[in-house]
Amino acid sequence: MAFIMEPIGVIRTPFAERDQIPIQPAFSQATGQVEVFPQYAEGLQDIEGFSHIILLYALHRSSGYALRVKPFLDHRLRGVFATRHPRRPNPIGLSVVRLLARRGSTLEVEGIDVLDGTPLLDIKPYVPDFDRVADARAGWYDDRPEDGQVTQAVC
Amino acid sequence: MAFIMEPIGVIRTPFAERDQIPIQPAFSQATGQVEVFPQYAEGLQDIEGFSHIILLYALHRSSGYALRVKPFLDHRLRGVFATRHPRRPNPIGLSVVRLLARRGSTLEVEGIDVLDGTPLLDIKPYVPDFDRVADARAGWYDDRPEDGQVTQAVC
Repeated sequence: MAFIMEPIGVIRTPFAERDQIPIQPAFSQATGQVEVFPQYAEGLQDIEGFSHIILLYALHRSSGYALRVKPFLDHRLRGVFATRHPRRPNPIGLSVVRLLARRGSTLEVEGIDVLDGTPLLDIKPYVPDFDRVADARAGWYDDRPEDGQVTQAVC
Repeated sequence: MAFIMEPIGVIRTPFAERDQIPIQPAFSQATGQVEVFPQYAEGLQDIEGFSHIILLYALHRSSGYALRVKPFLDHRLRGVFATRHPRRPNPIGLSVVRLLARRGSTLEVEGIDVLDGTPLLDIKPYVPDFDRVADARAGWYDDRPEDGQVTQAVC
């Protein structure tokens, strides 16, 4: 059983190469444009009410996958499902970004951390009741070395 | 350009039919089992350190999509990208759940809101620095009628 996903748009960012990308939106004030293809524009109705959105996208420059990877912020190999590393069996990326404005079928967003030209797969509203965990514990990430990198230069 | 996604496991839940499903994990104390296929088990290393995980899965019982849908919690049609409705152009579901335990390649989770047998596409660790927004505003959801439904009985 396989599922075929087709892009619904493209994400424009200042990052042409991976070594320019902040490791996650929380470390980025960069702005970008989420360009939704015109045939899907009607699906954006009511999105302006949300201060944050979840972008799902294809990690299209990632080839193949590994089950153990070295996270950008750590020195040790970790299971890929305990990391946000791009080399995943299904290379779907997820970023929570701030929605600044909508102009037609383009969304201006802040805190973007993906390559320019990244294919967009889905947009979901960020709903605190569903997506915000008050007391989460984050394993190796909480214990990461202080000199962990802050860009994706080494993959 | 299309992307082919293949399941890396299956999600077992108490919900055989959609009308039994709570609308989102925040409204569910249900427990379930995330069964990762053995060939991907090595990718689970280190996941026990995380109290919460993000499940991405195929909304496999959803057929086709609509650009305007009636959310489970509202009476009005909304743009699909401003909702978590399953009838999306790329039917990828996202749930944040509590990780209770790992037994080999099976994860016991709490707060599950998907159909039994749902194909698993990815697991990501929930990292507060990336995924928790302190001050999010949630548009129509914040203003929803008090009699909004709490199951997915009507789609």
